[in-house]
Amino acid sequence: MAHTIELIGGKWKLRILWVLSRKEPLRYGQIRASVPNITDMMLSQSLRELTRDGLLQRHAYQEIPPRVEYTLTPNGRSLSPILTALANWAEEYEHPHTDKI
Amino acid sequence: MAHTIELIGGKWKLRILWVLSRKEPLRYGQIRASVPNITDMMLSQSLRELTRDGLLQRHAYQEIPPRVEYTLTPNGRSLSPILTALANWAEEYEHPHTDKI
Repeated sequence: MAHTIELIGGKWKLRILWVLSRKEPLRYGQIRASVPNITDMMLSQSLRELTRDGLLQRHAYQEIPPRVEYTLTPNGRSLSPILTALANWAEEYEHPHTDKI
Repeated sequence: MAHTIELIGGKWKLRILWVLSRKEPLRYGQIRASVPNITDMMLSQSLRELTRDGLLQRHAYQEIPPRVEYTLTPNGRSLSPILTALANWAEEYEHPHTDKI
């Protein structure tokens, strides 16, 4: 569990992985727009570490202007169902299902 | 997802929930011993917030010396299978299964 938390812990990495698990590829600016309040420093550092750790892949296209996109790797994608389960858990936690009488 | 991360984010809360999902009830000192490097300030703050947010329950016994134990609430316990899935994912990530030839 300690190692898991190294990999995906912190408030930003889980959110970045979550955003990409819903839609990919995404450009840097699209990820930034999808993660409220993240700073450029935190986003670029998180993307660098997630790429280094084999959860994201960075694609740089030599166009004008240059384009950089991110996708999940197979390892990163294997986390998606767990993130969905986590989101469903939070949804249930916030809005508990109540049976109708 | 943002709200989930408020609830269980940070490097300590997930570890505390994980420890209690394996064994409960646990006393303060037992949790502290199971979460390497956590400080008393971070542990007591995390326990307070997890209790306030309805994931843990605190039981204080009027004994001498006083005894305080923590258990998961039903809400907290409903997170256990997701934590197990996360731990299994990390295990597979670190030691990928390779088919024998």
